[in-house]
Amino acid sequence: MRLAVIGAGAVGRSVVELAGEYGHEVVAVADSSSAVVADASSDSSAGNGLGVDAEAIVTRKAETGIVGDGDPADALAADYDVLVEATPTTLGDAEPGFSHVRTALERDRHVVLANKGPVAERYGDLQALAADSAGDVRFEATVGGAIPAVSTVEDIEPGHVTAVRGVLNGTANFILTRMAAEGLDYDHVLSEAQDLGVAEADPSFDVDGTDAALKCVILANVLSFGGADDPADAREFSLEDASVEGIRDVPGSVLRLAAEDGRTVRLIGEATGETVRVAPRLVHENGTLAVSGTQNIVQIETTHAGRLNISGRGAGGPETASAILGDVGRLG
Amino acid sequence: MRLAVIGAGAVGRSVVELAGEYGHEVVAVADSSSAVVADASSDSSAGNGLGVDAEAIVTRKAETGIVGDGDPADALAADYDVLVEATPTTLGDAEPGFSHVRTALERDRHVVLANKGPVAERYGDLQALAADSAGDVRFEATVGGAIPAVSTVEDIEPGHVTAVRGVLNGTANFILTRMAAEGLDYDHVLSEAQDLGVAEADPSFDVDGTDAALKCVILANVLSFGGADDPADAREFSLEDASVEGIRDVPGSVLRLAAEDGRTVRLIGEATGETVRVAPRLVHENGTLAVSGTQNIVQIETTHAGRLNISGRGAGGPETASAILGDVGRLG
Repeated sequence: MRLAVIGAGAVGRSVVELAGEYGHEVVAVADSSSAVVADASSDSSAGNGLGVDAEAIVTRKAETGIVGDGDPADALAADYDVLVEATPTTLGDAEPGFSHVRTALERDRHVVLANKGPVAERYGDLQALAADSAGDVRFEATVGGAIPAVSTVEDIEPGHVTAVRGVLNGTANFILTRMAAEGLDYDHVLSEAQDLGVAEADPSFDVDGTDAALKCVILANVLSFGGADDPADAREFSLEDASVEGIRDVPGSVLRLAAEDGRTVRLIGEATGETVRVAPRLVHENGTLAVSGTQNIVQIETTHAGRLNISGRGAGGPETASAILGDVGRLG
Repeated sequence: MRLAVIGAGAVGRSVVELAGEYGHEVVAVADSSSAVVADASSDSSAGNGLGVDAEAIVTRKAETGIVGDGDPADALAADYDVLVEATPTTLGDAEPGFSHVRTALERDRHVVLANKGPVAERYGDLQALAADSAGDVRFEATVGGAIPAVSTVEDIEPGHVTAVRGVLNGTANFILTRMAAEGLDYDHVLSEAQDLGVAEADPSFDVDGTDAALKCVILANVLSFGGADDPADAREFSLEDASVEGIRDVPGSVLRLAAEDGRTVRLIGEATGETVRVAPRLVHENGTLAVSGTQNIVQIETTHAGRLNISGRGAGGPETASAILGDVGRLG
């Protein structure tokens, strides 16, 4: 398939670099201010004559901060089969990502999202656009990085899934793991995480549970819409429907107390077709939910098949690109 | 879709009972000596006028040992979209299961297998029949029960998977778990397992590692054929290619020694595109591979997404039926 990649951060760049290995061509790349579109007659790509020069783009972005001489609108207007929306997650109206998705669907192209905004905040609008389009919408990469959470719920069928819960934010999990392992307090471990690049300079999105909550909202939408007899009647979730508590107020003393009882603390998110809740919870220190470091785990409760646990890397350029390219493979 | 279910053991009966919940109709059911085929004009089914009476069939099988008055050939000749092959696994020529599959594919129908025989012992023949058929072949239910092992490898793409390993037999795992937990020896725990229905009267298929090996052979075939540039050049695996060691010779003393070092023993199977190996191995007692009781775990090593772990129920009627019906949902 021919891909237009919108967003040239770690995830977008990884998609550009790996698409060829999955048998796909990248025909356009855009960041917030620039774009490069492959000339269909050009042979300046990595060998197939149809795609952009992945290496050149990644180098140019690293050296100059832009990907090309064109305008982002050029990428949206290019001749592609799948739009990969990998721009930063925004809340509320989920713009500009939502408009990118709408443009593609109105052109009857497929959309694969890593951007959580449209899927968490405007799921109903997204479903409506998809219903009117010959293109499909997939969003495995929005939940759990490399973990096939959405596609597994899809295969079991949302109507046969009663709940999905897990550790969905690697930054928060890393901090809690280190606090428990070293007996250090939150501020100390946060600094360590920032030095390692595991936490951002402004870590609030991760440590306040917002990122985990958006992922749970997405899962709740999948369960709600997928399990409804009529999607028009399905309850739609957005971030404001989530009950969210982060890890800033977890004192080292709670972890020490928990350890004496064979337990520890993890930031657990849970979604059903009716509720979304994120909060620190006590879990058995050797239990399934007590994944370590930046690992994520998704636990799916099913009607006929008991509980499934899927753990793996929840974030990262290649990991998330792998989920995106897996979605491309599952398209029509 | 209309399903013809061949095999009326626990798995076949569960498919018959659950198909309606997934939006499918069962139009024919056969066991080794009998069959029942729905009359297309009949309304004696569970309400849709097209399917068999699931409850009546399950009751009749329980009370009389047969499912109906027809001949198994009637089921194979019925008008169905998908043949579900759920007869007992046989080795070597994998008959009669293989012929059931061939009949369906030559009629351009889809096939979904729970029977490991054709997939482990005659993978090349199976692929050739599928290539010449308008029908597709899927076999999620042959590996790991409710665990989506095959579809996850398929989505990541076999060429991006370097190895798949795990605990793939619940009977052997239950025995080892109980030996470690209670300090009992193999023979004692085997009796307990047989009393609980976790082990068969003749447990060799499970405790000798044959069942786990067949599952690993299937995974090796998926990696080998899926990762090959030309399937005609792919190496084909069968049970005789597997190096297999079971759990009969694991003494209680090994488990006690291991426990002193924070380890335990699990029957681990591993498949790559080049090798298949099943043997008892030392694992960390709280490590990911140390699942307990009858649980299974599949660990997938990927090129770009690190390691994925998927654990859950590896066997059971509803669990395996869930995998079969998930496959039906993924068909063209």
